[in-house]
Amino acid sequence: MNNKEFTSELSRRLGYTIKDTSELIASLLSDMTQQLQEGNVISVQGFGTFEVKKKAERITINPTTKLRMLIPPKLVLNYRPSSALKDKFK
Amino acid sequence: MNNKEFTSELSRRLGYTIKDTSELIASLLSDMTQQLQEGNVISVQGFGTFEVKKKAERITINPTTKLRMLIPPKLVLNYRPSSALKDKFK
Repeated sequence: MNNKEFTSELSRRLGYTIKDTSELIASLLSDMTQQLQEGNVISVQGFGTFEVKKKAERITINPTTKLRMLIPPKLVLNYRPSSALKDKFK
Repeated sequence: MNNKEFTSELSRRLGYTIKDTSELIASLLSDMTQQLQEGNVISVQGFGTFEVKKKAERITINPTTKLRMLIPPKLVLNYRPSSALKDKFK
């Protein structure tokens, strides 16, 4: 199910044109992205939770040169499926 | 942003009632779940990709009893953010 199929499925359900549906998705996603950037968690019932987590900085050692490197902390978007959804794939 | 806030934000954008919006989300999610169960990948532009992946079976050894245990293969729902979205959290 690629992006086009997803959009057309949603437009069929909404009774919207493809264009309006695309705009809706884009506007909803930009809103979700902003929420996530502000550090808020987004949870959708029956689907799961999106959260931006900070990965701690860490030190690696290059096995060839033996040089220590500091990997800086970074932010990653994390998704955790709801337990109801997880159970469906058992 | 909990489920209620997500639904009310979406209903505001759609001009739908909360009830209709909840039903829309539920119906869309059940459709997405079915797609995933059939092994299909779902990609949403600017957001990312959902895919059910098979984790291979593996053998673990209980450190106390030294007993070998076979962990059976399992299916897990995997989400990979799009690179555009990843960049927003740098």
